[in-house]
Amino acid sequence: METVSVALGSRGYPIHIGAALIDRSELYAPHLGPAAAVVTNAVVAPLYLARVRAALERAGARVTEIVVEDGERAKAWATLDRVFDALLAARLGRDATIVALGGGVVGDLAGFAAAVYQRGVRFMQVPTTLLAQVDSSVGGKTAINHPRGKNMIGVFHQPLAVISDVATLDSLPDRELRAGLAEVIKHGAALDARFFVWLEEHIGRLLARERDALVYAVRRSCELKAAVVAEDERETGRRTLLNLGHTFGHAIEAATGFGAWLHGEAVAAGMVMAAELSARAGMLPRDDARRITDLISRAGLPARPPRLARERWQELISVDKKSAAGRVRFVLLEGMGRAKLQADVDERLIDEVIDASTPQSL
Amino acid sequence: METVSVALGSRGYPIHIGAALIDRSELYAPHLGPAAAVVTNAVVAPLYLARVRAALERAGARVTEIVVEDGERAKAWATLDRVFDALLAARLGRDATIVALGGGVVGDLAGFAAAVYQRGVRFMQVPTTLLAQVDSSVGGKTAINHPRGKNMIGVFHQPLAVISDVATLDSLPDRELRAGLAEVIKHGAALDARFFVWLEEHIGRLLARERDALVYAVRRSCELKAAVVAEDERETGRRTLLNLGHTFGHAIEAATGFGAWLHGEAVAAGMVMAAELSARAGMLPRDDARRITDLISRAGLPARPPRLARERWQELISVDKKSAAGRVRFVLLEGMGRAKLQADVDERLIDEVIDASTPQSL
Repeated sequence: METVSVALGSRGYPIHIGAALIDRSELYAPHLGPAAAVVTNAVVAPLYLARVRAALERAGARVTEIVVEDGERAKAWATLDRVFDALLAARLGRDATIVALGGGVVGDLAGFAAAVYQRGVRFMQVPTTLLAQVDSSVGGKTAINHPRGKNMIGVFHQPLAVISDVATLDSLPDRELRAGLAEVIKHGAALDARFFVWLEEHIGRLLARERDALVYAVRRSCELKAAVVAEDERETGRRTLLNLGHTFGHAIEAATGFGAWLHGEAVAAGMVMAAELSARAGMLPRDDARRITDLISRAGLPARPPRLARERWQELISVDKKSAAGRVRFVLLEGMGRAKLQADVDERLIDEVIDASTPQSL
Repeated sequence: METVSVALGSRGYPIHIGAALIDRSELYAPHLGPAAAVVTNAVVAPLYLARVRAALERAGARVTEIVVEDGERAKAWATLDRVFDALLAARLGRDATIVALGGGVVGDLAGFAAAVYQRGVRFMQVPTTLLAQVDSSVGGKTAINHPRGKNMIGVFHQPLAVISDVATLDSLPDRELRAGLAEVIKHGAALDARFFVWLEEHIGRLLARERDALVYAVRRSCELKAAVVAEDERETGRRTLLNLGHTFGHAIEAATGFGAWLHGEAVAAGMVMAAELSARAGMLPRDDARRITDLISRAGLPARPPRLARERWQELISVDKKSAAGRVRFVLLEGMGRAKLQADVDERLIDEVIDASTPQSL
């Protein structure tokens, strides 16, 4: 087992990474009071809920199970209200611990529930998707969606500990594994050129779900993200660098209807476009842009966006303003592993990237 | 104008107290970005919304008005969702400031909205009831109700500043003014014997709404509560002393149906019972218990609870366990101005107080 520490002072916490960790009651015990509620979904529950429950009970907690529907639709007030109802029906008090068992949706939902139930109770995460292990388990973002926008209602609420069991990735569909690898690749491309080289060398082992490779990829991703979050917990500065590929990626998700492309798939194609934009802006050597495209392709991820009219791209990109007083800011690369937030990107270059990525006439 | 500082490190904030403060744009200006949303209710809006709006606009902010229904019913998800909808429709971003204009309900609702809208935006309070000025404006508690319990969903979220304009109390119904005085009396009885003496001497001036008396009572209440909150922001220790009268008071509110007795009225009668219990436990001189009863009566507040069967009292009190592993804990007085959290109070004494307060046969 390896442990990454997220350094956030009194809100700091450990991320434990290894195989068959979900059964180890000593990892839960330090964060438990008399009662715990496990929030999970209908797909994960039959796979792992009994084991997590048993571990919590061995650690001395009374356990309440709360199973929500699978998928992004669960990140809604109606589901959250059912969680509150179950917590209150089980008479859980301020000394309860909420445990999120599942992917990013369960983590976001259960984390928000923990942040606001009786003005805040203890929270642990047991992520069972690669995306959740490398991304949402670090940084404390919690949220639900609002009909007018994703993640519009939420708080920053750090967990007390994260238990990332790479053995639970065995049950992950291939497509979701690859979507998780998109974020891993993003961490290398944005923040660590040596990690990017490691990924180029070991992508095959990751796709084959070799556990020691997965442990290293999860650990390094968490270390890289944790260092950024420690500097900028509330995403006012450096943390925005983690949004490499996200401006184009969000446009892809919005254009295709959220869910048609997985978030990681949209980020992958968005990263290729961001690398192309960086190259055209003279910031990134062409060869490095090509390496990013190649690795994304080898990971079985889309290196090209869907075909959209240029005007649609422009409209969608202008929505994703990151609150910078109306100016579109892009996360670009000024070298492999060196992301940079760039304001006032020349709109002609953006149009060139759009045209090159999605030829307007075939 | 007087200013009380709430010392909470980076979350500390000023409470400005005086007359005609709501028009002073320089009090809002330090906490404003390009846009502000004023959340108020249908009763307060016609009285003060235009003036607050004008002050915010003079300070350079674009203003969105959000008017919710009056009363405790507004502390519900349905209302909160309408607030989010209005914020999103007005395209308010993370740089917006939410201003709560009204009493405790508006403050709790708008404060919770500010805490979770886009993971947290700036928040200011302009309390227009005495209860909100002396109680909910200090301490950062925000919440909405759940059908299974009051204030079950919320967070601690400190405002950036509070503007307590005692001139707005001119429009307060007498009954609500007196309910606010119950909390003022509580602060004296629980924490400051000299302030209690001041109240005994000046209660008539407060009931006559003399502004300098109101400014002093609000200021001293805020100072006393702020000192307790600074020591114990999340109510794990000393802050529970502010619950003097609340165990019996909650029982009264629950038994009569929330709303039939105002919260302050229930706390007033509850304080008389807590003082009686303290006297019977040998902690409080009988004469001091009598002074509390007298002041509450002179303030026009109920010094006696409604008539309930002894079993109903016992049942309601056992629900209000304050999470202390099943033991009922009471805030008692070991002298005027010296509240103390007491576990394992002799149940026979509690029964005696119940019987003495509400004779079972008349």
